[in-house]
Amino acid sequence: MRVAQLQTHVLADKGKNLDEVEDLLCGLDGRGVDLACLGEMFCCPYETPNFPTYAEPVGGPTWQRLSSMAERHQVVLAAGSVPEVDEAGHVYNTAYVFGSDGNQLARHRKMHLFDVEIPGGQVFHESETLTAGSDVTVFDTALARMGLCICFDCRFPELTRLMALEGAQIILVPAAFNLSTGPAHWELLHRSNALMSQAFVVATSDARDMLASYHAWGHSMLVGPWGDVRAQLDDKPGVLVTDIDLSDTAVARGAIPALSARRSDVYELRLLKGEI
Amino acid sequence: MRVAQLQTHVLADKGKNLDEVEDLLCGLDGRGVDLACLGEMFCCPYETPNFPTYAEPVGGPTWQRLSSMAERHQVVLAAGSVPEVDEAGHVYNTAYVFGSDGNQLARHRKMHLFDVEIPGGQVFHESETLTAGSDVTVFDTALARMGLCICFDCRFPELTRLMALEGAQIILVPAAFNLSTGPAHWELLHRSNALMSQAFVVATSDARDMLASYHAWGHSMLVGPWGDVRAQLDDKPGVLVTDIDLSDTAVARGAIPALSARRSDVYELRLLKGEI
Repeated sequence: MRVAQLQTHVLADKGKNLDEVEDLLCGLDGRGVDLACLGEMFCCPYETPNFPTYAEPVGGPTWQRLSSMAERHQVVLAAGSVPEVDEAGHVYNTAYVFGSDGNQLARHRKMHLFDVEIPGGQVFHESETLTAGSDVTVFDTALARMGLCICFDCRFPELTRLMALEGAQIILVPAAFNLSTGPAHWELLHRSNALMSQAFVVATSDARDMLASYHAWGHSMLVGPWGDVRAQLDDKPGVLVTDIDLSDTAVARGAIPALSARRSDVYELRLLKGEI
Repeated sequence: MRVAQLQTHVLADKGKNLDEVEDLLCGLDGRGVDLACLGEMFCCPYETPNFPTYAEPVGGPTWQRLSSMAERHQVVLAAGSVPEVDEAGHVYNTAYVFGSDGNQLARHRKMHLFDVEIPGGQVFHESETLTAGSDVTVFDTALARMGLCICFDCRFPELTRLMALEGAQIILVPAAFNLSTGPAHWELLHRSNALMSQAFVVATSDARDMLASYHAWGHSMLVGPWGDVRAQLDDKPGVLVTDIDLSDTAVARGAIPALSARRSDVYELRLLKGEI
């Protein structure tokens, strides 16, 4: 199975971002890519006032264009995340995944909003304009069963655990860490989530643009189920193509029973609302 | 607050191991150590047939000697782990913690037993002779509220999470990773548990002895609540002394709400039996 992660700059012009993705997918045609992944808010500059302005409903023009790209390029497209608005006017940070027939396979609304104040560093309050989702996202594709969470979601082991227990072999993480949390935590969190889930983690960031208002850490990476970094970009725009063997999850789970030896007689992790 | 981690060889003679600990504590007298920590099974060579042979009940000679050392050297003594036998004859991998008055502050029985077969690597079945505990261990000391888990326990985020949610500011992990899992996972797990708990992790291993049957990874380390390694030994016998400032946990928790932003309306982690 071949995975391509597209790490792009986020431009103010929504359409230009989509054009860039289309160009990159064209460049990958014929290379046997099965799964293509984009970054968090890859077509909306990462500022809270932008989210309602850029938001579209499910089935809107951006959704349609992404669906078409998946079909045209015959890939499962984990289309990063985009701002979604529902009928009530609530805006979400939403990740869509499309099958190679263009059908939507999954929709995850970011469940943990990033409201943070790092002394001397980042200050950001997503909840100013965003509403949090409440569903854990695990879905089947023709390639594998996958889970998906968005950026700050990946700091909550409950969510990762629930995805792994539902059988996810690949966990997709569109994300955009910043220059405070990136160097400290980006690799650590993805490696630990892969290890604790004994699954692949495909973490895809936007590229860093020091002229933009938000400076993404970049470093899109793919981690194996032993917690080993398989491949990684730096901060610049780029495409990371990695071949993976899904049977590595079974090897890891056979070697160390980090899932099967859970003491399910002692503790229980359960959903109170929402769905998986 | 000053922490000393004593990384020692494990000799077949139980008493000699205790003598070594006593010697090292004597060497630390007057240096202002508040908390001293030992490794997993620091006085019982790590082989399953040894556990019943070396086991003693609570209050037995080893327990008494460790209690006396805590009082004599005026430290909180997290006395690694030792084999404990109960009235029914069950044997546990048990960690005792003694206050500087010699009183037992905590007892943790390893909850997840290490039954593992790594292809080309380690094969070990603790459950051949050990019984698993069922209590999550969080306790107050004059220094801080602490949690404790033993080695393989640290791969289960449910346990770490429960300790953090109960207010542990320091998580003690007596452990003895091997030469397969050590280089791959030792640092990763302790850093990720510290980061996800926003607490200090004090992971203390036995020293490596290539003439012994079990080859411990060593590398006792202390990790801060930002997931940063503060200090680390190599594989040889040694004492690691580290000063920590407990207010760093509040700084980390203030900077990133990785505990307070949990979606406790969506998921719940609860105990089904046992106590905290």
